[in-house]
Amino acid sequence: MKKILILNGPNLNLQGRRDVEIYGSMTFEEYIAELSQRYANKVEFDYFQSNIEGELINSIHQSVDKYDGIVFNAGGYTHTSVALRDAISAVKTPVVEVHISSILAREEFRHISMIAPVAKGSIMGFGLDSYRLAVEALLG
Amino acid sequence: MKKILILNGPNLNLQGRRDVEIYGSMTFEEYIAELSQRYANKVEFDYFQSNIEGELINSIHQSVDKYDGIVFNAGGYTHTSVALRDAISAVKTPVVEVHISSILAREEFRHISMIAPVAKGSIMGFGLDSYRLAVEALLG
Amino acid sequence: MKKILILNGPNLNLQGRRDVEIYGSMTFEEYIAELSQRYANKVEFDYFQSNIEGELINSIHQSVDKYDGIVFNAGGYTHTSVALRDAISAVKTPVVEVHISSILAREEFRHISMIAPVAKGSIMGFGLDSYRLAVEALLG
Amino acid sequence: MKKILILNGPNLNLQGRRDVEIYGSMTFEEYIAELSQRYANKVEFDYFQSNIEGELINSIHQSVDKYDGIVFNAGGYTHTSVALRDAISAVKTPVVEVHISSILAREEFRHISMIAPVAKGSIMGFGLDSYRLAVEALLG
Amino acid sequence: MKKILILNGPNLNLQGRRDVEIYGSMTFEEYIAELSQRYANKVEFDYFQSNIEGELINSIHQSVDKYDGIVFNAGGYTHTSVALRDAISAVKTPVVEVHISSILAREEFRHISMIAPVAKGSIMGFGLDSYRLAVEALLG
Amino acid sequence: MKKILILNGPNLNLQGRRDVEIYGSMTFEEYIAELSQRYANKVEFDYFQSNIEGELINSIHQSVDKYDGIVFNAGGYTHTSVALRDAISAVKTPVVEVHISSILAREEFRHISMIAPVAKGSIMGFGLDSYRLAVEALLG
Amino acid sequence: MKKILILNGPNLNLQGRRDVEIYGSMTFEEYIAELSQRYANKVEFDYFQSNIEGELINSIHQSVDKYDGIVFNAGGYTHTSVALRDAISAVKTPVVEVHISSILAREEFRHISMIAPVAKGSIMGFGLDSYRLAVEALLG
Amino acid sequence: MKKILILNGPNLNLQGRRDVEIYGSMTFEEYIAELSQRYANKVEFDYFQSNIEGELINSIHQSVDKYDGIVFNAGGYTHTSVALRDAISAVKTPVVEVHISSILAREEFRHISMIAPVAKGSIMGFGLDSYRLAVEALLG
Amino acid sequence: MKKILILNGPNLNLQGRRDVEIYGSMTFEEYIAELSQRYANKVEFDYFQSNIEGELINSIHQSVDKYDGIVFNAGGYTHTSVALRDAISAVKTPVVEVHISSILAREEFRHISMIAPVAKGSIMGFGLDSYRLAVEALLG
Amino acid sequence: MKKILILNGPNLNLQGRRDVEIYGSMTFEEYIAELSQRYANKVEFDYFQSNIEGELINSIHQSVDKYDGIVFNAGGYTHTSVALRDAISAVKTPVVEVHISSILAREEFRHISMIAPVAKGSIMGFGLDSYRLAVEALLG
Amino acid sequence: MKKILILNGPNLNLQGRRDVEIYGSMTFEEYIAELSQRYANKVEFDYFQSNIEGELINSIHQSVDKYDGIVFNAGGYTHTSVALRDAISAVKTPVVEVHISSILAREEFRHISMIAPVAKGSIMGFGLDSYRLAVEALLG
Amino acid sequence: MKKILILNGPNLNLQGRRDVEIYGSMTFEEYIAELSQRYANKVEFDYFQSNIEGELINSIHQSVDKYDGIVFNAGGYTHTSVALRDAISAVKTPVVEVHISSILAREEFRHISMIAPVAKGSIMGFGLDSYRLAVEALLG
Repeated sequence: MKKILILNGPNLNLQGRRDVEIYGSMTFEEYIAELSQRYANKVEFDYFQSNIEGELINSIHQSVDKYDGIVFNAGGYTHTSVALRDAISAVKTPVVEVHISSILAREEFRHISMIAPVAKGSIMGFGLDSYRLAVEALLG
Repeated sequence: MKKILILNGPNLNLQGRRDVEIYGSMTFEEYIAELSQRYANKVEFDYFQSNIEGELINSIHQSVDKYDGIVFNAGGYTHTSVALRDAISAVKTPVVEVHISSILAREEFRHISMIAPVAKGSIMGFGLDSYRLAVEALLG
Repeated sequence: MKKILILNGPNLNLQGRRDVEIYGSMTFEEYIAELSQRYANKVEFDYFQSNIEGELINSIHQSVDKYDGIVFNAGGYTHTSVALRDAISAVKTPVVEVHISSILAREEFRHISMIAPVAKGSIMGFGLDSYRLAVEALLG
Repeated sequence: MKKILILNGPNLNLQGRRDVEIYGSMTFEEYIAELSQRYANKVEFDYFQSNIEGELINSIHQSVDKYDGIVFNAGGYTHTSVALRDAISAVKTPVVEVHISSILAREEFRHISMIAPVAKGSIMGFGLDSYRLAVEALLG
Repeated sequence: MKKILILNGPNLNLQGRRDVEIYGSMTFEEYIAELSQRYANKVEFDYFQSNIEGELINSIHQSVDKYDGIVFNAGGYTHTSVALRDAISAVKTPVVEVHISSILAREEFRHISMIAPVAKGSIMGFGLDSYRLAVEALLG
Repeated sequence: MKKILILNGPNLNLQGRRDVEIYGSMTFEEYIAELSQRYANKVEFDYFQSNIEGELINSIHQSVDKYDGIVFNAGGYTHTSVALRDAISAVKTPVVEVHISSILAREEFRHISMIAPVAKGSIMGFGLDSYRLAVEALLG
Repeated sequence: MKKILILNGPNLNLQGRRDVEIYGSMTFEEYIAELSQRYANKVEFDYFQSNIEGELINSIHQSVDKYDGIVFNAGGYTHTSVALRDAISAVKTPVVEVHISSILAREEFRHISMIAPVAKGSIMGFGLDSYRLAVEALLG
Repeated sequence: MKKILILNGPNLNLQGRRDVEIYGSMTFEEYIAELSQRYANKVEFDYFQSNIEGELINSIHQSVDKYDGIVFNAGGYTHTSVALRDAISAVKTPVVEVHISSILAREEFRHISMIAPVAKGSIMGFGLDSYRLAVEALLG
Repeated sequence: MKKILILNGPNLNLQGRRDVEIYGSMTFEEYIAELSQRYANKVEFDYFQSNIEGELINSIHQSVDKYDGIVFNAGGYTHTSVALRDAISAVKTPVVEVHISSILAREEFRHISMIAPVAKGSIMGFGLDSYRLAVEALLG
Repeated sequence: MKKILILNGPNLNLQGRRDVEIYGSMTFEEYIAELSQRYANKVEFDYFQSNIEGELINSIHQSVDKYDGIVFNAGGYTHTSVALRDAISAVKTPVVEVHISSILAREEFRHISMIAPVAKGSIMGFGLDSYRLAVEALLG
Repeated sequence: MKKILILNGPNLNLQGRRDVEIYGSMTFEEYIAELSQRYANKVEFDYFQSNIEGELINSIHQSVDKYDGIVFNAGGYTHTSVALRDAISAVKTPVVEVHISSILAREEFRHISMIAPVAKGSIMGFGLDSYRLAVEALLG
Repeated sequence: MKKILILNGPNLNLQGRRDVEIYGSMTFEEYIAELSQRYANKVEFDYFQSNIEGELINSIHQSVDKYDGIVFNAGGYTHTSVALRDAISAVKTPVVEVHISSILAREEFRHISMIAPVAKGSIMGFGLDSYRLAVEALLG
């Protein structure tokens, strides 16, 4: 049985509570429940979300020896955070970068990912399904 | 009676305690008191300051249904924070961007505002009076 | 009693005559009248508009000793005019830069203001109300 | 019978009077006469030239309800004038951008057109014949 | 009687078969037929389309001594192809660059034309009518 | 039963025949066979590879009404091809962009994807497994 | 006896009336008088100043056959005016570019001169004495 | 006896616990102990590390009147943090910037330091010894 | 006896048939014949030219085990083709980049070579003699 | 009687010996002689030329207390030499920058002057006469 | 006993002789004497200064086997000299880069160091004390 | 019998004395000897190396009428020296640019050659053999 951390950055706590006509009314709590059921007996999921960059770094540091992989959506920190990049580089845990929408199809300041060069791989644009695909990628 | 949040970002807790010959010796606590008196019976003010980007995001999230508007000086985060921009986009509360000095008259790295494109409007360069003008703007 | 010049640059003569569903049907002549009433006994307003950059420069030169302040919307000249910037630098009259919409929320070539670094301050994004806020700023 | 304004920007008053070996000795006055004859009973032409940016803006403003289209060569203002761009955006009259030579084949500072994004279309590089093609384009 | 080649680059084979509400349901085959009728006794048209850059180059090479001019829409190759530019430079046949929409009014990566500096002239933004204007330009 | 096209761009025909110690000795023919077995009774796969940009465009055009989705690795054309981007935009078939390695972790000229903004989503960095994840994404 | 036009652009009408401690209290009218005396029997001077770009262009056009040379300080238009550059290119009259201070020693947006590439030469940084040196240059 | 704060930013808590073959197995706790011994009777050291940008700002604010100097390694925040720069500017305490490796010898996004222009000086590239040299610099 | 492939990209089929006064009237067929004679008993030459990028890639792929080296002039594809670069990287055959004129002495968009970083070396500017020097380089 | 150093940088020793049809056949030795005669009893000239950047620096250092001014043409070092700029800043002697042709009218890499911001003023484009004008400027 | 070369680039020979109120009146000769005394019995110092880039290169070449380290202030050559960078790369002797002021706090053209990426480390901003700290760094 | 100068710039005096496992242990003195033998009765070689930019310029000046060609490796001065470029432009002697490794395959600051646009041609990447190929190029 594998252990995977779903790690969400800034503003992703609002999922399911705003713009429900676009993003749907499913919260991450509900989505994680669904994932848990789908991968029952195969994956145990932990979930952590923070709007504070440094708490995300702390969470990545603490992942060592606890998780087989991290599914990480760094939200708005994706584009500027050297510190998150360094945190991922520093740990052995494989990190899969995910984005709900395609960052390359949005404003130009979102086209850069500080995370991608140090991640195992990147998945973006598939809505919440990006997270499931990341889990698939970690299972190999 | 309207409710307005005055939200201050990094280093603004030092106002009134340093460079008093330039910025004056009035702290934000005193200034808010003055504003409250000026707009007595018209506006109720809350004040929050943090040096932590994520706490500012939290504060914006929690503003929903609590305030008629936010007067926001993001300080040094103005120029780089995609996460604060996303937070403002995500809530319905109108946000007026303020700056004590004109960011366009300072170093080039301060010329960019991530906040302006998602704010209701921007006011800068009038010292502490920028905050009063922002309150005026929210009262319409 | 203070004297304030409302100075408008290119294309602002069309206000109230086009796109009325967006900008409203109020012309600047009507708006100035409204402002005059609001600040009766406090401010006397003059209004000048020109599509010609050099006439705006002339107007700024002639403001010396005549006005306590200028509320200036340089329109499309905002982004390129070194000459207007130099004119403002050359006179003592305080100039408040205004824009109906937020220039930082529009096309990239509008993100630069040649006016802001030499203005007393800048106000943008509040529709016609930007002008009233600028008057407030000049009254202090 | 259609009404078309041929609008020429800075330095185009010199056409036919300098570098005749290159540009020919035909002035715009003569060329307009020729066009009038060619489109007799189909198009009535007006001609206006100014070296002053703001007078070109005035002319575009006044075109409303007077012309079925404008053939506009903004000359050196093509590359920098936000104000002319805004003027064209503000009126309903269709504007066809023309250039005698191809701006994309000259110095790099001429490669940008502020006019093109708001024009109905652009025609360049065909000498004076660019103007006739623009008339053709307006006739559809 | 003149001979003109209408040369179309990538994706233009789809014209009339997709987005008919925008681009109309007229295919290039039908449009060429219409042009042939309009210029009966004056112009004989050939039509070639390819999605392969090198075949377009071949086509330009083979135009020598066969055509009095080429009306060329290089489609997506317009913005990057040094090879097509060199091909046009290498032959004597006059080439008129056309675009259905204005490349200067679309995404920034479409603002550059490798073709324009070596073409006789450029016409863009008039829909299919851009092709007729190009024929007019070649007839002089 | 769904029909999916695996579409490979330049140099991907060499997979399994060079650098086997890095990329493994599995060719795409073998990998497609494996995928077919894995998704037996669920997905029918077609495979097409070409080093010629225009043939990839042709292939995308012909996908209409034939496939439920395309898994597309545009190889070196990813970074420059406006024509491939236009081809994907022009068809209704959902296209998932894949890359064997992460383009954002390689040389800077590979950081741009012309494909991503018009694709359903992008998956990169997981080796050949990127293709399976793309199939998963198309199955939803 | 030579005839020279001293041509001044925007804001130079303020010379001698502002910042007298820096620029001195000598106006251009007085300075021209001084120059006239110095070059009595050698040079006849005309003086024209305008804040309007197009009037400067007109003035350059009208210089043909009237002056042996122009001493031109384009002020703030120096850095952006393609139209003034084209005007100078179009006439035969030699134009010497002057600046009171060194444009290369001020803000970066003043480092570019559109005038220099088409002028006979450039002189800057010597205060009002730059004008005398320009006269010397025209006398050869 | 002087009081010096050793202040460490993101990821520096991992020192001595990862990549020991490169960075050595000495943690900062041990290194501070060593420094304390070396400068016994001369310097009293405090140590603070945080992954949270705002806590580093808080720490700098609180340094006033408590320390004779700060030895500051801002880690990944070095390259982007306007807020940390402003914090250092706001206090009187001299700050020496240190880096274990030379930021100018690493990836291009690390070549910029927001800290350096407001620091007393910068020392980088000497491994942990950079900290001792910074202490030397503060002792003068 | 060595085997060398002379591989020519777009537009080089026109050599000797256009601009003969500049490039001479010698075609590549004749030049290869001359080379064959010069290196008789030492080198056997094959020649391939295509205007199609993908056919050049195919040709490079097929060179494996067939040639001791490739003399490659990628023509206009030199400056943009990531796919050709990848093709050269993928094969073991040494490739010498040649250009008839010096790409660094022409337009700025020709200053970049995608080929050079993966080629054995580069030779440019010597006319057709560049090819002979490349053969010399391959012979060592 | 004033003492002025004419200081020439790289390649200026060739003046009068190459391209005599363009630059004339007058060498600097002859030109200095002419200048000496023209300013007899007013100026004593020294002349130094070197192709070595450091010798020019030495020469500037040694000018202190020896000359009333330096007329300096830094040749190709103008555009890149921080060291020459620092040398001029370090001495009190006024330095006038001269260039035979206008550096702003040549290749783009010549548009930058490291010398101008620290020089008393700049004169360029008047051929050898630029030197005389610089002497005039020093005499005031 | 270690041997260290203090190597100074352009203009540093003026130290102590100009701007004494800022830099102090201590010359490098005196400072080296002071250093020698401070590190008596530990370090033997040699001192070399040149304004000529190539002589600095020569000096670095000759350092091999003669010195245990070089303290190098390349002055104005720091920002542009590829040749000095290559010289440092070519020798084994450890080189510590020093600057009297912080190059990152001065004009933008001084922000780049060609030396830093090949130096053992960099120390800047501490006045002459930067040299002592560099000696400390070499002693380890 | 031809006369050729082999001219080497900074750091090339170290060839054969450092990194012998990479560059071989052959010095330029030995290599020139070998070349002399190979081209006995055909070419007479002179060799000059200097680390001083100005001495290389002197050497190029003195080549006039003495050599039939120069084989020039400008080393680190290749990328920045306007002065060397001007020196080559000023003389008639054909100059072939050589580099031991391919400058286009190294760091980005080495991708620019100031020499190439004024050289007869460029050869790079073939190790010391680049020099022999340059001799071949000069023999034609």
